[in-house]
Amino acid sequence: MTVDPVKGYPAPSVRRLPLYLHYLRDLRGSGRESVSCTHIARDLGLISVQVRKDLAITGIVGRPKTGYELPALIRAIEEFLGWNTRCDAFLVGAGCLGSALLGYEGFIENGLNIVAAFDKNPAKVGNVIHGKEVFSLDKLKPLAERMHVQIGILAVPGHAAQEATELVLNGGIIAIWNYSPVRLEIPAEGVICEDVRLSSSLALLTSRLKSLRATEE
Amino acid sequence: MTVDPVKGYPAPSVRRLPLYLHYLRDLRGSGRESVSCTHIARDLGLISVQVRKDLAITGIVGRPKTGYELPALIRAIEEFLGWNTRCDAFLVGAGCLGSALLGYEGFIENGLNIVAAFDKNPAKVGNVIHGKEVFSLDKLKPLAERMHVQIGILAVPGHAAQEATELVLNGGIIAIWNYSPVRLEIPAEGVICEDVRLSSSLALLTSRLKSLRATEE
Repeated sequence: MTVDPVKGYPAPSVRRLPLYLHYLRDLRGSGRESVSCTHIARDLGLISVQVRKDLAITGIVGRPKTGYELPALIRAIEEFLGWNTRCDAFLVGAGCLGSALLGYEGFIENGLNIVAAFDKNPAKVGNVIHGKEVFSLDKLKPLAERMHVQIGILAVPGHAAQEATELVLNGGIIAIWNYSPVRLEIPAEGVICEDVRLSSSLALLTSRLKSLRATEE
Repeated sequence: MTVDPVKGYPAPSVRRLPLYLHYLRDLRGSGRESVSCTHIARDLGLISVQVRKDLAITGIVGRPKTGYELPALIRAIEEFLGWNTRCDAFLVGAGCLGSALLGYEGFIENGLNIVAAFDKNPAKVGNVIHGKEVFSLDKLKPLAERMHVQIGILAVPGHAAQEATELVLNGGIIAIWNYSPVRLEIPAEGVICEDVRLSSSLALLTSRLKSLRATEE
């Protein structure tokens, strides 16, 4: 099992927490007040022991018969993830993908608030996309410092990613969410980088599809 | 290490292949003809043994001194991933994210060709987004059958995801690339599903950021 380098939480467990949260919020909406590991496991196609272990990283412990109180469990997950408080972010790269991220409703409900976008293309500067203004790159540092923004989302092509990295780090940003297809060079300490590699996911899909076709022929 | 359920290839290795491919294509562009594991490892911040092991799943073996011939290595990775031949896909959900995926240039260079989009919103039907037409949902089955499309990309909200899944499976699609935030119920055999959970990646980012802040305070 992969272990989170910062604090030792198992990354697969952390990765599953949003899945639980989405499910539990739905369940709360339907009027339930408590839920057991067995119940969660059955609905999400997991095994009960795994669910208990995953939820335990948030510090919450279920009770033998009733399981978890729903509001407390939801709050524990939100607090663990830091999704109970609003977190401001800047986006670099206002192309197709960047624009989609600016309009993605799933982020704001998890506390992630993209406050502004930045692009090197003068034709894009001044545009407003999904209510967020696009600024030129030289505005990033002063705005990040003034607004104390800590998260930078990179939606730039591979060849522009390292330059964008240096730009956001120079502005005091300490957490990079990298949508570019390349590996970023970042200082080892005090900065977090999480890569969203769409091509890695595509690699799993297409290599499995190829295997599936081979077994069927 | 997670193991691919279909053929036993380690998923982390498969996930890293696009990173190598991107790097190796760049290297080829600069005129090099061969490359060693040590060289790749150094440039990508990995260890050499890991690089050798990852590349070995494609069936290629490097030679003691020269390493790998660049064109052969690139071809081996592309073939392993099925990225050497064009693969047609349908997209369901032509909202923000779906529109971005329609225009994402990184897909076509890896053989993924989104040929059409489908949306339940009549106002979107007939629109052309990045050169791809948006059809109504009832057109999906006949078009999928006629065009022999095997990949369905779901960019729909969570509440619409299961319905979309049944729609694409009903059209004969056997590989689902799921961008929705929920777990899909799919038949166990003969169908592949790969989830792109942006919220899982966000969970890792924000939980680590929270830990980082806590250690700094």
